[in-house]
Amino acid sequence: MRKRFIIVLTLAVFLLTSLYADEGEWLLKDIAKLNLQSKGLKISPDEIFKPGKPSINSAICQVGGGTGEFVSEKGLILTNHHVAYTAVQRSSTDVTNLIKDGFIADTIDKEIVARGYEAWITIDFTDVTEIFHKAIKDIKNPVERTKTLEKVSKEVVAKAEKKNPGYRYEISSMLNGKAYYLFKYFIVKDIRIVYVPPVAIGEFGGETDNWMWPRHTGDFSFLRAYVSKDGKSAEYSKDNVPYKPAMYLKIAKDGLINDDFVFVVGYPGQTKRYRTSYSINYYQNVFYPRFINKIEEIVGVIDKYSEKDQAAAIKLASLKKGLENAYKNFQGNLEGMKKVNLLDKKIQLEKQIAESLASNPAELKKYEELHKKFKEVFDRELQNSAKEFAITGLNISSSILGDAYLIYKYSIEKEKPDLERDAGFQERDVPVLKRRLQMTEYGLYVPAQIELFADTLKEIVRLPEGSRIEAIDEMFKGNTGDELDKAIDEFVKKAYAETKLIDTKAKLDLFGKDTKTLMAINDPFFKLAAALESTIEVNKEWDREFIGVLNEIRPQFIDFLSKFKGGFLYPDANGTVRFSYGYVKGYKPKDAVMYDPFTTLAGVIEKDTGKSPFNVPEKLTKLEKTKNFGSYAVPALNNDVPVAFLSTIDSTGGNSGSPVLNAKGELVGVLFDGNYESMISDFVFDPELTRAISVDIRYVLFIAEKFTEADFILKEMGLK
Amino acid sequence: MRKRFIIVLTLAVFLLTSLYADEGEWLLKDIAKLNLQSKGLKISPDEIFKPGKPSINSAICQVGGGTGEFVSEKGLILTNHHVAYTAVQRSSTDVTNLIKDGFIADTIDKEIVARGYEAWITIDFTDVTEIFHKAIKDIKNPVERTKTLEKVSKEVVAKAEKKNPGYRYEISSMLNGKAYYLFKYFIVKDIRIVYVPPVAIGEFGGETDNWMWPRHTGDFSFLRAYVSKDGKSAEYSKDNVPYKPAMYLKIAKDGLINDDFVFVVGYPGQTKRYRTSYSINYYQNVFYPRFINKIEEIVGVIDKYSEKDQAAAIKLASLKKGLENAYKNFQGNLEGMKKVNLLDKKIQLEKQIAESLASNPAELKKYEELHKKFKEVFDRELQNSAKEFAITGLNISSSILGDAYLIYKYSIEKEKPDLERDAGFQERDVPVLKRRLQMTEYGLYVPAQIELFADTLKEIVRLPEGSRIEAIDEMFKGNTGDELDKAIDEFVKKAYAETKLIDTKAKLDLFGKDTKTLMAINDPFFKLAAALESTIEVNKEWDREFIGVLNEIRPQFIDFLSKFKGGFLYPDANGTVRFSYGYVKGYKPKDAVMYDPFTTLAGVIEKDTGKSPFNVPEKLTKLEKTKNFGSYAVPALNNDVPVAFLSTIDSTGGNSGSPVLNAKGELVGVLFDGNYESMISDFVFDPELTRAISVDIRYVLFIAEKFTEADFILKEMGLK
Repeated sequence: MRKRFIIVLTLAVFLLTSLYADEGEWLLKDIAKLNLQSKGLKISPDEIFKPGKPSINSAICQVGGGTGEFVSEKGLILTNHHVAYTAVQRSSTDVTNLIKDGFIADTIDKEIVARGYEAWITIDFTDVTEIFHKAIKDIKNPVERTKTLEKVSKEVVAKAEKKNPGYRYEISSMLNGKAYYLFKYFIVKDIRIVYVPPVAIGEFGGETDNWMWPRHTGDFSFLRAYVSKDGKSAEYSKDNVPYKPAMYLKIAKDGLINDDFVFVVGYPGQTKRYRTSYSINYYQNVFYPRFINKIEEIVGVIDKYSEKDQAAAIKLASLKKGLENAYKNFQGNLEGMKKVNLLDKKIQLEKQIAESLASNPAELKKYEELHKKFKEVFDRELQNSAKEFAITGLNISSSILGDAYLIYKYSIEKEKPDLERDAGFQERDVPVLKRRLQMTEYGLYVPAQIELFADTLKEIVRLPEGSRIEAIDEMFKGNTGDELDKAIDEFVKKAYAETKLIDTKAKLDLFGKDTKTLMAINDPFFKLAAALESTIEVNKEWDREFIGVLNEIRPQFIDFLSKFKGGFLYPDANGTVRFSYGYVKGYKPKDAVMYDPFTTLAGVIEKDTGKSPFNVPEKLTKLEKTKNFGSYAVPALNNDVPVAFLSTIDSTGGNSGSPVLNAKGELVGVLFDGNYESMISDFVFDPELTRAISVDIRYVLFIAEKFTEADFILKEMGLK
Repeated sequence: MRKRFIIVLTLAVFLLTSLYADEGEWLLKDIAKLNLQSKGLKISPDEIFKPGKPSINSAICQVGGGTGEFVSEKGLILTNHHVAYTAVQRSSTDVTNLIKDGFIADTIDKEIVARGYEAWITIDFTDVTEIFHKAIKDIKNPVERTKTLEKVSKEVVAKAEKKNPGYRYEISSMLNGKAYYLFKYFIVKDIRIVYVPPVAIGEFGGETDNWMWPRHTGDFSFLRAYVSKDGKSAEYSKDNVPYKPAMYLKIAKDGLINDDFVFVVGYPGQTKRYRTSYSINYYQNVFYPRFINKIEEIVGVIDKYSEKDQAAAIKLASLKKGLENAYKNFQGNLEGMKKVNLLDKKIQLEKQIAESLASNPAELKKYEELHKKFKEVFDRELQNSAKEFAITGLNISSSILGDAYLIYKYSIEKEKPDLERDAGFQERDVPVLKRRLQMTEYGLYVPAQIELFADTLKEIVRLPEGSRIEAIDEMFKGNTGDELDKAIDEFVKKAYAETKLIDTKAKLDLFGKDTKTLMAINDPFFKLAAALESTIEVNKEWDREFIGVLNEIRPQFIDFLSKFKGGFLYPDANGTVRFSYGYVKGYKPKDAVMYDPFTTLAGVIEKDTGKSPFNVPEKLTKLEKTKNFGSYAVPALNNDVPVAFLSTIDSTGGNSGSPVLNAKGELVGVLFDGNYESMISDFVFDPELTRAISVDIRYVLFIAEKFTEADFILKEMGLK
């Protein structure tokens, strides 16, 4: 359900500051306009992206919620340790703890499946705005408007997929409905784990250092992409062969230095640079506080079980890591918003726009009416949000309920003609739905889930009138106080004892059955899913209304704004492939403190406490003591090995794992984080403080060669 | 009793590293040898110190445990806020909280007495080594040796004081007995408080920022020195007149910048740069852990009472501040020792010295015997230390017991001829003893002291056999477990209820009475003091033995060391006036982080949380917002006001309040701290990391002029 927020709220339009040199995550089709050669690029923009031709873009994929890059002609993917993490966790047990020890497959037969992982490669994208704008032109009702957008989307995709089998197509809206693009993807469905350093390198510094500079994390891993023998997208098979990318990245020979031009191509998830004060108010006072509370609650329960049981710890590790990352992000955003008075600044800006329209009463009136509409739609959203969050809470706390709803919902949708089904439940989505069902078990620890689910139900039945969920009220009616809690505890315990949905095979057998068959088996989770259906449908209608209104008013707002500010707009990040550039550069985090743009191995040793997350492996300490740095020592860095570096590149979540390339388009690092001071950069880009943090390719190679002695990796990349 | 450690352990001799350019706290007589002009000094060393002539030294005094400097011809003293703190605390109540609000006397009649404060001005000092060395030449017994040193000390001082009434003389040993100097002081006994900024400026950052950089503390205060109408040292009287110093410091007109030469004249308390591995072992494994534990215990009790009661908080504020400062210092030293492996390094160095003597068997044998002696004397000290610490603990936890012992001990000593009395109990010491008795009440909060004293007794009766104190065992014999605790609680409660020593007047009336009279009044604390006397005397003999041995072996060791290392030695700090120099300079605290040498007002605002210790006064925020900086804005610092700065000056506790002077000998700042990374600098001076932190004189003047609008201060210093 968290994805919902991403979809709904990506559609906002707002420009806070005028555009800075390095700001923006640009569509690959727009980079020719950026005059990049004058900024330091030494190759042609065509080498980065040219439809129908191999380009740097061909070497880059979306994988594991982040980005990966091909670094050999045999489908070797370099990405972040934390991007590969879930796959590693899914193959770990308390006996074979790959997270802790790392993993190395020096021959292809030793590789293991990266469960649930796919790699998406963008082949091309085309502007389909006209089709969408034409379809909604005369529709005033916001729900109808959204439904039409959904319908057109499905039709355009169906047509394209029919014409080009073997590819997947997706519609992405840019600048909040001002434009629509049809993206064409090649999906690699068989991904395997090749080389993952031990957690003491790949996650060195852990949560303590997450988002922080100076940083000393060797946040990299290697995966491999496989396709069928005839080069087609195919599910795992031992007969599959390594994918041969149209292009793979070359490792830079010259080391990066301060002020160097660098760029990134990757899959940033979501920015919100063009939001109104109404949206900021929603994030600051509703969204962040609510999620922060919920995450604290969940992580508390996870920790309780993880401390008692190593097997539980491994099962819950990936969920915990994700939650903690979100927690720090939300906290950072919330602090940042308050620190820079973002809400006040937005209100001021909105006033200034109004003042600039003083001499044009007609325009001013239009602008004021627009504000009224924003106010109305957000007032309504604030009212609805508690109930929406209640459903989200249920989904977060019980993956079994989530699976039950998925199977139940599909049983309804599959009865409809394909193009009339809800998005995500078409035939083309069936493999995705099945994989979701398959992956549940790798993060499932029943005792923790029982506690979390019961806690969430107890919260929901105590929500104020109007925010509660009728179906749940009905289940426990007549009980109050301790009796109510007891009834919930009993229900949840019994439900988990009785359900057939914990067993993956049983679950997959039920997928695709019709609704009647499902209800006949009397599973408590199917019953709950069916009972919740009407509430979920109401919420969905609310969403459609919200989206429909925003789709109308946000583009209007962006027009006012862009007239007021001037400047060439880049669209907010939305998970599609983007280009951003910048320079290697430190920053001044506070009075009298200056951060250098490079960290070194000496800094790793400096942080060593002997205890996780700052436990330096003995072998690494020895390499440092004996200065056994091979060719990776850098004279300018006191003859030490560079570990991580800062750049002014504009990035966000989803960019994790993105290749950082130098002016010649050679690989110099792997992006893995932003600095804490820039966490609010999803809303505002501050060129003085916003930095991307990348692991230096020289550290990746040093660890591979000297620490892991993984010569095969270097050979495969043509370095030995 | 803590002073004991200072006296005993100051006598060590050890040189760890070769001498660096800026290292050393030099005797003023030695500075001509430093070739200072080549290092940046633009005045003659004679202007800093020349016996019998007014010099910069004449403008500097020891005050409140730190250093102060005269900045007007009317005895105006500039020092640190934290040096004046105890005086301010002694004049504060929960109604008139001068700590919180600050204090300003814009005319002389508004000034208030700085209770218990004196200012000592060094007039001259002469080498008397020969007298001492001659006296102990043939004495082998260490206790006799120490007694002889004490006796000669008293004789030399008595002779000098008789010849020059109105001055105080003190013997100070340099380089651990290699040299002895007779210091001549003029003491100003009437000190008053003139101007103290509010705690939110003078202690901005509090304990959190203590020892830290970047620093934003306006750590300054102004006092005034008074003497009798005829210019003589005199206790407080309303007829006294401002003291006219032989010299006062001029404020620099040119602002300080990076790399500028700076120097300090002040009263550093104690360094331990020439210690052996035996001494380091003692600090690392006994002294620091023991005191750290005890301070934690005491501060816990102080906090408990301070939270409940504002009056208690004010009474205990100065004690708490001192303890917390010591705590962070001890912790920092302990961490630092472990971090740099100081003990191992010392052992290595000692081995290298032995190796260098390989070709000279006679010398090597001598060296090895010396080591044996060090081992023996420290083994004994380690054995004795638990019992010694038990007595120290009693003294720290009960100032009433301390006072009782002082009165009791004086009653015994006063029966002896003056020159035969224990040091500190001669007639010349009577005013000091009386003042100590008078000051107790300003830090006394009886309920907290009852709890602390009982806790300490409970610890002592549970010490292992041999470390316990017989007199205390005797008091509670027959009790064990809970019964023992109950007996102690009852004793302490009863003792505080019955004693006459809480009332200052009653206490002073008893001072000077003979032992029989004292014992006849049956006060529980006199009884306890008398019972402890034999243990204290045994401890004192242990000390004399320890000192006597060290006085023999440390100078021998320093000879070996100085032959091995070469180089010109400065004596360890010992509370006498010293000169040190250096340059304005930032540092690199860790990988990828660089500290600038200046902080600014913008940084003060940056740290504002609205809550102590980071609550910026509204008026200061306004000055910053309106850029109302007067002439204090510095173009090189982004047109902001400098607040604090770093320099490579070698300093330690006691240097607090020292004037920082530029190459022309003009005042540019007031030293107030060292950085955390340099806390171990009492043992080792690391030129890369050791920095002194000073408040910039421009911040002092900016706060005085713009924030406090204390024009009279600027006028008196000739600036308006």
